[in-house]
Amino acid sequence: MIQCKNVLVLYVGGTIGMQRNEHGVYVPVPNALFQKIKDSDMHDFSLENHLPLNLRHDELVLPLFGSTAVVYKIEEYKVLLDSSNMSTEDWIRISKDIEKNYYKFDGFVVLHGTDTLAFTASVLSFMLQNLQKPVIITGSQIPIFETRSDAKDNFLASLIFAGCYDIPEVCVCFANKLLRGNRTTKISSNLLNAFDSPNYHHLGNAGIEIRCKNFQESALNIKRGFVLVHQHYIRKKSSSNGYFAVNTSLNCNVGTLTFFPTITSSQLESFLKPPTEGLVLQTYGAGNIPSNNIKILQEAVNRGVIIVNVSQCSKGAVCADYEAGKVNS
Amino acid sequence: MIQCKNVLVLYVGGTIGMQRNEHGVYVPVPNALFQKIKDSDMHDFSLENHLPLNLRHDELVLPLFGSTAVVYKIEEYKVLLDSSNMSTEDWIRISKDIEKNYYKFDGFVVLHGTDTLAFTASVLSFMLQNLQKPVIITGSQIPIFETRSDAKDNFLASLIFAGCYDIPEVCVCFANKLLRGNRTTKISSNLLNAFDSPNYHHLGNAGIEIRCKNFQESALNIKRGFVLVHQHYIRKKSSSNGYFAVNTSLNCNVGTLTFFPTITSSQLESFLKPPTEGLVLQTYGAGNIPSNNIKILQEAVNRGVIIVNVSQCSKGAVCADYEAGKVNS
Amino acid sequence: MIQCKNVLVLYVGGTIGMQRNEHGVYVPVPNALFQKIKDSDMHDFSLENHLPLNLRHDELVLPLFGSTAVVYKIEEYKVLLDSSNMSTEDWIRISKDIEKNYYKFDGFVVLHGTDTLAFTASVLSFMLQNLQKPVIITGSQIPIFETRSDAKDNFLASLIFAGCYDIPEVCVCFANKLLRGNRTTKISSNLLNAFDSPNYHHLGNAGIEIRCKNFQESALNIKRGFVLVHQHYIRKKSSSNGYFAVNTSLNCNVGTLTFFPTITSSQLESFLKPPTEGLVLQTYGAGNIPSNNIKILQEAVNRGVIIVNVSQCSKGAVCADYEAGKVNS
Amino acid sequence: MIQCKNVLVLYVGGTIGMQRNEHGVYVPVPNALFQKIKDSDMHDFSLENHLPLNLRHDELVLPLFGSTAVVYKIEEYKVLLDSSNMSTEDWIRISKDIEKNYYKFDGFVVLHGTDTLAFTASVLSFMLQNLQKPVIITGSQIPIFETRSDAKDNFLASLIFAGCYDIPEVCVCFANKLLRGNRTTKISSNLLNAFDSPNYHHLGNAGIEIRCKNFQESALNIKRGFVLVHQHYIRKKSSSNGYFAVNTSLNCNVGTLTFFPTITSSQLESFLKPPTEGLVLQTYGAGNIPSNNIKILQEAVNRGVIIVNVSQCSKGAVCADYEAGKVNS
Repeated sequence: MIQCKNVLVLYVGGTIGMQRNEHGVYVPVPNALFQKIKDSDMHDFSLENHLPLNLRHDELVLPLFGSTAVVYKIEEYKVLLDSSNMSTEDWIRISKDIEKNYYKFDGFVVLHGTDTLAFTASVLSFMLQNLQKPVIITGSQIPIFETRSDAKDNFLASLIFAGCYDIPEVCVCFANKLLRGNRTTKISSNLLNAFDSPNYHHLGNAGIEIRCKNFQESALNIKRGFVLVHQHYIRKKSSSNGYFAVNTSLNCNVGTLTFFPTITSSQLESFLKPPTEGLVLQTYGAGNIPSNNIKILQEAVNRGVIIVNVSQCSKGAVCADYEAGKVNS
Repeated sequence: MIQCKNVLVLYVGGTIGMQRNEHGVYVPVPNALFQKIKDSDMHDFSLENHLPLNLRHDELVLPLFGSTAVVYKIEEYKVLLDSSNMSTEDWIRISKDIEKNYYKFDGFVVLHGTDTLAFTASVLSFMLQNLQKPVIITGSQIPIFETRSDAKDNFLASLIFAGCYDIPEVCVCFANKLLRGNRTTKISSNLLNAFDSPNYHHLGNAGIEIRCKNFQESALNIKRGFVLVHQHYIRKKSSSNGYFAVNTSLNCNVGTLTFFPTITSSQLESFLKPPTEGLVLQTYGAGNIPSNNIKILQEAVNRGVIIVNVSQCSKGAVCADYEAGKVNS
Repeated sequence: MIQCKNVLVLYVGGTIGMQRNEHGVYVPVPNALFQKIKDSDMHDFSLENHLPLNLRHDELVLPLFGSTAVVYKIEEYKVLLDSSNMSTEDWIRISKDIEKNYYKFDGFVVLHGTDTLAFTASVLSFMLQNLQKPVIITGSQIPIFETRSDAKDNFLASLIFAGCYDIPEVCVCFANKLLRGNRTTKISSNLLNAFDSPNYHHLGNAGIEIRCKNFQESALNIKRGFVLVHQHYIRKKSSSNGYFAVNTSLNCNVGTLTFFPTITSSQLESFLKPPTEGLVLQTYGAGNIPSNNIKILQEAVNRGVIIVNVSQCSKGAVCADYEAGKVNS
Repeated sequence: MIQCKNVLVLYVGGTIGMQRNEHGVYVPVPNALFQKIKDSDMHDFSLENHLPLNLRHDELVLPLFGSTAVVYKIEEYKVLLDSSNMSTEDWIRISKDIEKNYYKFDGFVVLHGTDTLAFTASVLSFMLQNLQKPVIITGSQIPIFETRSDAKDNFLASLIFAGCYDIPEVCVCFANKLLRGNRTTKISSNLLNAFDSPNYHHLGNAGIEIRCKNFQESALNIKRGFVLVHQHYIRKKSSSNGYFAVNTSLNCNVGTLTFFPTITSSQLESFLKPPTEGLVLQTYGAGNIPSNNIKILQEAVNRGVIIVNVSQCSKGAVCADYEAGKVNS
């Protein structure tokens, strides 16, 4: 008895769907990904007309994972987004696309360029409120059209996490790891193991076997599989009766600034002056800054600028004694 | 037959020598570190009058390490420097202090606060030219006056590396690791294992045994010891006949800026406008930036601003295709 | 208002209390550890007569940790045990010593040689039934009498975990990590970071700050501290009304054997023949063995030998399909 | 101008070529792997008749890697070997197959089951003497016939290392890492990242870019690529005029035994009695064993048994003071 799970794939852009042009430079090639996937073993054509699936022409289906058929539809953006140029409009568009389709699908995968993938994962985690379904952001370091590529591994694992697991949060899936979206950072520009969440546990790992209470059918029926090891660290479904909603009122007048010893007052001020309404300061260690900057921050706080103090260090946090609120008091 | 090695310790500031004041806040306490060390087992008073040592009153000596006596002198800065407030003047002062004493000592240890320790290690590695002796920067996450503290471990290992090993470069020694100074970053605000060089091999590790060709006496005579494993990655002594020299002509008009998706032209421009003469850009992945910023960078390059493109990722590097020079061409 | 916690330290042997003899060889030196500790800053003599402490002559007290005074008593074994020679009698003795003192102390520390430390931690975790208090096994790679040593760090952290935290299990504390006893293995013969639990989360880390619900007083009062990060992975106190009890009926007729390709039937049989009653097999990967050995195992199972199949790999586990019970069925 | 490199692939067995039978159990399926690869993008049929390649019907060719065409021939063993049952005869056969083809190919890949893959890699490294070409052992945790599988990644990277790089040693290539064969161990039974060499540097990593002096054509011409980072740790080609030779005189009467506290004299003796001629002892820490076993070892050494003392710890080594030779002296 086949169980059907539906996943919407938003292919918004990125290396994953690029091909070399005549100059050997990678460029996005529209309307090529769907066919590439359809011709690969990521689509099981023997299931196409299998009841209760009855695929539409724009739907694909993974080979059975246990008794679960993950049916997925790839929605390709007309103009593929350049990861380096992502803006608030793009984030709003992606979140609205999820909102529009929220009740029609069991999970969502976003195919994204790696450069700003972690930024997008983080902002979506705040925009998608009362989220009860998996939203998995992925991409690849090498295009799916290359022989050696991490694209299929990442896309396939993301589809399985989105379709078969009960993970109510925005995640990054990359190199067999499942990471919390707003804790993820790109750690390598040249290795395939390109993302990590150095200050939070991995949510899961894709290995051989399945060990996951969040998996939605009996683990005993599963032969191929995943290892999802950190059950405690996955976000709990909210028990409140809040409805899923998308908060698109993003404030663009927020920046982030990393301190360094020779920073000047004028540089700091340029990040605080109107129209700036908020600033994330990446400070030293447990939250320290050069003391001659305190006054400038104080004035900005007095003007109503919200300042958040985070550590430059990849592990640990700022100490309460140094919280930016103190500046104001 | 005791062999004597002399190390100069510049105690410039930092948590290592702090104590709580009456409000429970850590503050630097001048003229306390020397006596604390002298009263500890980091000073072997039985060697004080041992020939050929004949210590002066301001000198200390470690217990014998093999047949080597590491004699060290702590030069404490009159005004202890606050790590958060380090400036070019401070770096010049430290490097001049090393220059003044360069031929009198076999190695140097700098006791420094952890917040900007990695910045100082990096800048010193460029200021100290044709360096043929170890300069080891260290500090601690917890003061030496606390019962539980990483200070003694870090200080002691640094003294042994500086006194007994042939390491002609500026290093950071912290939590039993020896790291290249200009590859080091503070990775944790709350763990004792606070530094790493994610994009370069560790130069050494302090363990039980000794395995180090750079160690200056026969390893066979050593009972206590270190493991220095990455011989190939230690800088080679220059064979040229260049003399050691300190380059103190630092240009303060250099900044660093980390890109983020909502950065504005005005923010970028504030980091490029005069008197800025150089900017280190921490860009996405293999060196990408939002394309609407290219023109601004181009104009700055045309004005003569030197722009260096480095990756935000802790591993890997920018790709040749994206080097900042390209902006100019 | 000082809160007093009592910890019993069983000093059973190990490198931690050794000194070099006239040949430069480390040997255990009886009755020296107590005085060494008493003379160090691990004993706060200013608290000696402080009410409500009123220390007895054989008690020591750490400097206040928040408002908690950890009072500890070192019980040194008359004949210090050699870690390489630990036997069931030694484990029974240690567990009986804990039993005898179970209600008099808030926690227990065992100072042990590193060679079989992980074996002892594992067996104690099964012998000490319904354990509701911390039992922390530690030791050091370098003796406490050496200038450079990991002994004080390990001992001090163990005392604080045993005295101040609510950790109802047998743990190993080493190199700033707190590990589950029966998941721990010695991973390095020469680094100070000598133990790990590769197949289970770390239970805690000793860093700068405190973040631990299991800590028995308000974290807000604490200035010095620890980071205990993996709350979910610490054993829950049993809610049953089972009493603490020590199971000393150990069966020595149990061995462990690691498979290798050229193993012979006669070698395998020698581990299965009487008086053997149990055998832990370290098999390949997910539980595989050379097939010509199946029959031998079958016969042993038929004779009543209990065979447990575990993987040689440090991570992962044997697959259900290969469980030893299958041999019998 | 295409440069052609020839690689011989010995498909000796393992999970990589298995398929599920009607009971859902993985079984080796003969004569299926070649066609599966030929139909995949690991064979570039557009190059089939390309001069100077002119492939024979049993040859395959990777898409161009730079200007290099890696032509490979899969020699499948008639009876596929079960990794759990590998024996000296199998190792002799593999090494003879390499010997027979040594001068016809530029490199060799062995497709092997993961259970004893590390044993085979280690023994081949000693059997293949004066080796001047790469021999890369690989396999997979999941069969190549599954949708989600590590097989293609591992096989493809192995072919590129074997065909394009100048690595004169027996290596394991798995999960984007290149490891020294006789330093490798299986570390996980369920993760795809299943092998590591905890006591030796990785020889290489497969990432996006190429950075490798050992790569046999100019790195500048390469667009797709690898990162081979640890140049210093790759074995140097012997400059002696020794010829490549295969040493097949393996002695099967050699075992390995891991010590544990309750080991009995009779168990130890069973591993030392005739026909045993050699024994690798996995001892505690830096080489210690229970002292009541010394006499038994002494007697065996007197009889001529060669005993090698290695540490149970994955890192570090036994100390000279404890070397097994000492037993004899």
